[in-house]
Amino acid sequence: MIAELIAVGTELLLGSIANTDAQMISQRLSAMGITVLHHTVVGDNPQRLAQALETARDRADIIITTGGLGPTYDDLTKQTICQVFGRELELHEDILEEIRAWFQTKMGKTMPENNVQQALLPVNCTVFDNPVGTAPGCAFEENGVHVLMLPGPPFECRYMFENRAARYLEKLTDGVIVSHEIKIFGMGESSVEEALRVPMTTLANPTLAPYAKLNECMVRATAKAETREAAEDMLRPLMAQVLDTLGDVVYGVDVDSLEAVVSGLLLDRGLTLSAAESCTGGLIAKRMTDLPGASKVFRGGVVSYTNGVKAGVLGVDGDLLERYGAVSEETARAMAEGCRRVCGSDLAVSVTGVAGPDADDRGTEVGTVYIALAARERTICKKLACGRGRGRDRVRSAAASNAFDLIRRSLLGLPV
Amino acid sequence: MIAELIAVGTELLLGSIANTDAQMISQRLSAMGITVLHHTVVGDNPQRLAQALETARDRADIIITTGGLGPTYDDLTKQTICQVFGRELELHEDILEEIRAWFQTKMGKTMPENNVQQALLPVNCTVFDNPVGTAPGCAFEENGVHVLMLPGPPFECRYMFENRAARYLEKLTDGVIVSHEIKIFGMGESSVEEALRVPMTTLANPTLAPYAKLNECMVRATAKAETREAAEDMLRPLMAQVLDTLGDVVYGVDVDSLEAVVSGLLLDRGLTLSAAESCTGGLIAKRMTDLPGASKVFRGGVVSYTNGVKAGVLGVDGDLLERYGAVSEETARAMAEGCRRVCGSDLAVSVTGVAGPDADDRGTEVGTVYIALAARERTICKKLACGRGRGRDRVRSAAASNAFDLIRRSLLGLPV
Repeated sequence: MIAELIAVGTELLLGSIANTDAQMISQRLSAMGITVLHHTVVGDNPQRLAQALETARDRADIIITTGGLGPTYDDLTKQTICQVFGRELELHEDILEEIRAWFQTKMGKTMPENNVQQALLPVNCTVFDNPVGTAPGCAFEENGVHVLMLPGPPFECRYMFENRAARYLEKLTDGVIVSHEIKIFGMGESSVEEALRVPMTTLANPTLAPYAKLNECMVRATAKAETREAAEDMLRPLMAQVLDTLGDVVYGVDVDSLEAVVSGLLLDRGLTLSAAESCTGGLIAKRMTDLPGASKVFRGGVVSYTNGVKAGVLGVDGDLLERYGAVSEETARAMAEGCRRVCGSDLAVSVTGVAGPDADDRGTEVGTVYIALAARERTICKKLACGRGRGRDRVRSAAASNAFDLIRRSLLGLPV
Repeated sequence: MIAELIAVGTELLLGSIANTDAQMISQRLSAMGITVLHHTVVGDNPQRLAQALETARDRADIIITTGGLGPTYDDLTKQTICQVFGRELELHEDILEEIRAWFQTKMGKTMPENNVQQALLPVNCTVFDNPVGTAPGCAFEENGVHVLMLPGPPFECRYMFENRAARYLEKLTDGVIVSHEIKIFGMGESSVEEALRVPMTTLANPTLAPYAKLNECMVRATAKAETREAAEDMLRPLMAQVLDTLGDVVYGVDVDSLEAVVSGLLLDRGLTLSAAESCTGGLIAKRMTDLPGASKVFRGGVVSYTNGVKAGVLGVDGDLLERYGAVSEETARAMAEGCRRVCGSDLAVSVTGVAGPDADDRGTEVGTVYIALAARERTICKKLACGRGRGRDRVRSAAASNAFDLIRRSLLGLPV
């Protein structure tokens, strides 16, 4: 099946926001085996939207619109779609009640009268009620073309796609689609593709698709079958083969992030962590504390951006700093051990390196990073080159990700 | 003039990346007074690209394509455009030399032979040489329609737009376009719009346009004139009026960020800063150290995510923590003062609050944040409600931005 995405909103044409809804929906459709051939963006303009709909109707089986479902005068998606597809709008009393209740409980105020128009939906449509906002979505079929309308705000759009539209689309594709995300750190997308080439190119169902992400990559395995169980049965041997091929660069399946995996491992083992950061400047602490409930495993850390703080707060020996320099294995080890002591954690990770744009005063190249991990029994250290051709941001984020991977490998007893 | 953007790349249709090039270009075009009515995305498919070009040719004065200028077999933008507009491609020897030199110096290797096709450009075009990558762009005019081709990778696309395409477009619009960005913290987009309503609605040239950003907003003032000086002359009274109307919520004009402004103020005054972070968990340190050369003004900090670290590293009194709780004015003040002492900085900022998702064990509501700033002579403290209806990320980033604004206001002697 061929799908086309039409985003409606002048703010997209002004560049106030990027069309991240299209990215999210495209990823999901691709995983469902639905092919997307066009994205189109038009403003809050009924003529141009109508034209885009007419064009899409002639070349797609599924049209998904995002945006233009709000309560103001320029929200015209439903009206325009009804006009193009020859349908009437009707008031859905139950939806109106839900919107009223949403205002009362979430906003603590009475629903403004113009929100009534959000309860107007095409006759004979499948209603997508919206528990995370005021704009319901909906879907209908006309002459073999399915039209789905989703709200524009990214959080609402994602919720409504995953919990409403995905089920509607699954029925069209006549089966259940199940996918798993295999998260990978320490192997590039092209090497992953190379390693998996045979299963990737020969498979139609289940399928494997690789995605590059910042500092890491991911393979999505997707199967379509009559039941969830049957799809899982199809995926099981494929997943086993992928995990076997890739080995310990796989840090998790259907997990959020490296730091979430590290956090889970620490929690399982009843261990706490702290971080001493030089070039990453707080990024490791920030990523750990992005996770709700981080305080169970993360005690805190020290951003020792200057030698004064390395010595004064972490107790790194001044002579050692002088002798080996701030970016050295000796300093990384001393930072981790000092951090473990002052923060009173079971483990402490440290990072010191040259993020750039310039080499340090000893001529150490941009991207040179030392990561140490101190535990009660011993301290390990790893030297990395995160540099060549990368900017400051990339060096810093790669250093932080490598630090998390070092902790993961150490906790699992894998080679570091 | 009407512009249409066409992005070429199957990775966009698969959702591997978002179309951020369209956002960036739309912002810039809008500032230049060029109206964008459509964005279209097609895959690496010559038929569908040709169709999109034919449609665009009939409704736009300017077509800007992004992507498909690479060296591989599926990079077909130039070939397809030439076919639709009836032009030939010719080899540009000077561009080929530049690409060869780029490989030699930036990648340290010999140019692969298939990169030769990147030096093929339409006859009689304006060449946009690309010093930040291998794909040159170009532009030509055919029957009153201007076609511009830019590379897809966002960093290259931005560079090529700002340094190459913008000048080409300026000539079309018959004059010079100058714009300034007025950066605002502490006043929402709708209040800014309300305050500036008269100049915004009555102006055609110069223009004022507001943009909402995370935790802050921005007004772009743009003027078009025959010369840069004339445009600046037109902007001067308008800028003065805007700055006068908005007052000290304006933190800078044509500056990057609040933290960059704070960093500049510290540098001017020869002062150093450190940060003690609880709920922001390293975000303030991370944002300070995002700036190259941060070590001149930022000594480091302590992420005191647990009471143990607040007491052990920052020396916050255990009885005080017990009595007032971790989220209190007393603790915020003690954290800032302790951080200033242990990091040996002139100023220290501290943040303690409830980022959520749950209230703390004393029932303090999500979003309650205390920010303190310690200097030699005194410590000030501010209580904020960053909560209601916002997620953990938003509370944390709002708390960090408010901390930077408190430092800015304090350094400038403004009310805090």
